[in-house]
Amino acid sequence: MTTIAFLTDFGLQDDFVGTCHGVIAQIAPDARIIDVTHGIAPQAVLQGAIVLRNTTQFLPVGVHLAVVDPDVGGNRRAIAVATEDGRAFVGPDNGLLALAADDLGITAVHELTDERYRLPEVSRTFHARDIFAPAAAHLASGVGIDRLGPALDPETLVRIRIPDPDVGRTQISATVIAVDRFGNVGTNLLRSHVDGLGVSAGDRVEIRLTFDRYYALVAGTFADAPPGELILYEDSYGLVTLAISRGNAARLTGVRLGDELRIAVT
Amino acid sequence: MTTIAFLTDFGLQDDFVGTCHGVIAQIAPDARIIDVTHGIAPQAVLQGAIVLRNTTQFLPVGVHLAVVDPDVGGNRRAIAVATEDGRAFVGPDNGLLALAADDLGITAVHELTDERYRLPEVSRTFHARDIFAPAAAHLASGVGIDRLGPALDPETLVRIRIPDPDVGRTQISATVIAVDRFGNVGTNLLRSHVDGLGVSAGDRVEIRLTFDRYYALVAGTFADAPPGELILYEDSYGLVTLAISRGNAARLTGVRLGDELRIAVT
Amino acid sequence: MTTIAFLTDFGLQDDFVGTCHGVIAQIAPDARIIDVTHGIAPQAVLQGAIVLRNTTQFLPVGVHLAVVDPDVGGNRRAIAVATEDGRAFVGPDNGLLALAADDLGITAVHELTDERYRLPEVSRTFHARDIFAPAAAHLASGVGIDRLGPALDPETLVRIRIPDPDVGRTQISATVIAVDRFGNVGTNLLRSHVDGLGVSAGDRVEIRLTFDRYYALVAGTFADAPPGELILYEDSYGLVTLAISRGNAARLTGVRLGDELRIAVT
Repeated sequence: MTTIAFLTDFGLQDDFVGTCHGVIAQIAPDARIIDVTHGIAPQAVLQGAIVLRNTTQFLPVGVHLAVVDPDVGGNRRAIAVATEDGRAFVGPDNGLLALAADDLGITAVHELTDERYRLPEVSRTFHARDIFAPAAAHLASGVGIDRLGPALDPETLVRIRIPDPDVGRTQISATVIAVDRFGNVGTNLLRSHVDGLGVSAGDRVEIRLTFDRYYALVAGTFADAPPGELILYEDSYGLVTLAISRGNAARLTGVRLGDELRIAVT
Repeated sequence: MTTIAFLTDFGLQDDFVGTCHGVIAQIAPDARIIDVTHGIAPQAVLQGAIVLRNTTQFLPVGVHLAVVDPDVGGNRRAIAVATEDGRAFVGPDNGLLALAADDLGITAVHELTDERYRLPEVSRTFHARDIFAPAAAHLASGVGIDRLGPALDPETLVRIRIPDPDVGRTQISATVIAVDRFGNVGTNLLRSHVDGLGVSAGDRVEIRLTFDRYYALVAGTFADAPPGELILYEDSYGLVTLAISRGNAARLTGVRLGDELRIAVT
Repeated sequence: MTTIAFLTDFGLQDDFVGTCHGVIAQIAPDARIIDVTHGIAPQAVLQGAIVLRNTTQFLPVGVHLAVVDPDVGGNRRAIAVATEDGRAFVGPDNGLLALAADDLGITAVHELTDERYRLPEVSRTFHARDIFAPAAAHLASGVGIDRLGPALDPETLVRIRIPDPDVGRTQISATVIAVDRFGNVGTNLLRSHVDGLGVSAGDRVEIRLTFDRYYALVAGTFADAPPGELILYEDSYGLVTLAISRGNAARLTGVRLGDELRIAVT
C-alpha cells in the first residue's frame, strides 16, 4: 500500500480536500491518504514549503501531494519531483516542493503534461483536482514518473528561501515564520543563533515584537516556567519559538506571519 | 471495498463526525470513508444540496451519507435513495439528497424505519449517529436498500430549488450561494447568463453587492488579472464566481450566503 | 485490523495531527486511525476527558490515543491503561484517560518508559509524536502493554472530577461543560436533576446565565419548539443542554466553558 501525504492551504470548510480524496480513490483505490495539514495560510507558499520540509521525515516513503498555488491557471509549471530516498513530490513549481526535495536530493523532475494522467476535463482554477491529485494517484498505483511528461532540469525549478536572521553580538533580528493553534510563535532562528548571544536556559532576554517590548525566559519546555510567563524554546522541529506557559503568545502580542521579532541580551 | 462519502454541517470541532466514523467502522469494518466536507454552514440545507450535487461525480460509486438536518427529531422522514448509476444516498428527506439524486435518475426510495439497521437506542437529536450512519454502513456491507424500510414514491420527496437568477438585457440579479475559504463568492449564474450580457473575457462589468459598487474583470482564472483586482470567472464546477486575484473578495465586500449580487454592463 | 481512535486539542490548522498519522503509519501500517476529534479547547483536560468517556462506546474496541497535555515536558507521567473490555488508552497521566477507563474497569497501567517504543529522538514539547503515537501504534501492531514500561498502581493515576451541580428544591446551579458548533450549551446535569424540580416537557423554566435571565422550554428535541425559542433538552449523551431551535444559544448568551448556569422553577 502506497501512501499519499497530502498538504494544502485549502482548509476543511469547503469540499476541495474531499473532492481530491474522491479523485484519488477512483484512480488508486489501494493508496492510503494521510492529510498532513490543509491549514497552511491561504496562498502562503513559504509556510507550506517549510511545513512540507519539516514533516516529510515523519511520513512513510511514498508520494507527497502538496498544493499551495496562487498562480493556478497561469504560466507556472505543474511538476513531479523524485528524490533519492524513493519519494515523489507532486505540485506546482513555485518553490513549494523544492525546499523539501533539495534536502533529500533530487534525482528527476518531470512536467505534468501527459493528458492520460489528468482528468478528462481540466478547469483553470482547480488543478489540485484535475492535474495534481490524478498524477499523485497514478504514481501511487505504479506509473513511472517519466511517463507523466517530459524531463526538466532540476536546476530550473523555482526556489524560495527562508529569510536569514540578522545576527549581531547582543541582538538578533528574526522573522516570524509560523503561528500555531496554541499561539506559539515560530521563527527562522536555530538554537545556535540564540546560543551565540551567550544566554542559556534560565536567563531572561528582551523581545521586541510588533510595537511592544517583552521579557522572555530561555527554557526547555512549557513546564520550565510558571503559568503566564513568556518563554523562548527550541520547538520539536528545531526552530526557536516564543510561547507562553499555559497561554497564547500570538494573541498577547498580536503577531502575524512575516513580522520581525528582535531578541536582545538584557 | 465500498466507499461511504460523508458530507455534513457538523464541523470538526466536536466529536459528531468522529463518532459516526466509529459507528460505521463497527458495522462495516471494510468500508472506506471519504469526508467530502463537514463545513456546510450550520443547517444550510440548500448549500449542502449544491455541494453534494457538484461533488458526486468526483467520488467513487458507492454510498453517500449526507446530513444537514435542522428538523432532527421532528416529522421529516429518514430516507435512502438509489440512483441509476448504482449509488445510494442516505440522509434526511428535506431536499438535501434530491438535487443530486434527481440528476442521476432515482430508481428507488426507502424510509429508514427497520430497527435492525439502527443503533439499539435512538436519541432525538443525533440521528446521524443512530440512524443515518448505521444505514449507510449496512448498505456498504451489502444489505439491500429494500431491507431498510418501506418503499416511498420518489415523487413525494421534499425538493428545494436553487433560486433562479433574474436575467435582463443589460443587467443580471444573482444570488450568492457559496463563499469559500479563499473568499471566492459563488453565484447561481452559469457562464451563459453572463455571455447573454454581450461581455467577454477582458471586459469590465459593474458589480453591486451588499451596499457597494465595484468593477470586475471578466476573466478565465486568477492569473489573468493583476493582484488586487476583482474578477468574474467560471469556477471549477461551472458557476460564475467573484474573486480577487491574490485577495479575499468575501472579506472586501462583506458578502453573506443568500445576498443579492447584481452585474451590469458598464 | 486494529483501530486507533485519536482525540486531541491539536486542531487541524497545524501539522500535529497529520504528523502523528505519519508516525503511526510507519510503525503499524495496517492500523486504521479514526479521528474522534481534535477540537478539544486548547489544554482543556476536563473537556477532553468527558468527550473521551462519552464517545468510547461508539468506537471499536482497540487503542484510544488521547492527548491534551499542558504539562508536556514536565513531571507528569506518560501512561497506557488497559480496561476489562480489551481497550487500551494511551496519553498523559493528568486525568484525561481515567474518567473513561474507570468506567470500563482498569486491569493494568504501565508507564511509557521503554525507549524501544518511542521515536529515537524525543523532543520536550511534542510527546504525541515522539512517545504517545509510537506507543499506540506498537499496541495496535500487537506489542503487549507490559512491554511498554513498568506497571503502575491504578490507584496512583491522576483523576479529575466533573463538578457536581448544586441541586435545590426550586433551583439548580449547574456548570457549562461543553459548547458545540451549533451553539448548544452542555451542562453537568442529568435529566433526573431537572425532573427533581417537578417540571416536565412543555413547562417553562427560568435560566440565569452570564449576567442575563432567559426563559426556556423543557423539550425533547429542537422540533418541539418554534424557531428562535430557547429549549432545555437531554442531549444524545444524556446531558441536559440549552439550545435554540434553529439558532445559536451560545452566541445569544455569550456563554463560555466553566460558566455557571442556574435553572429555576418559574
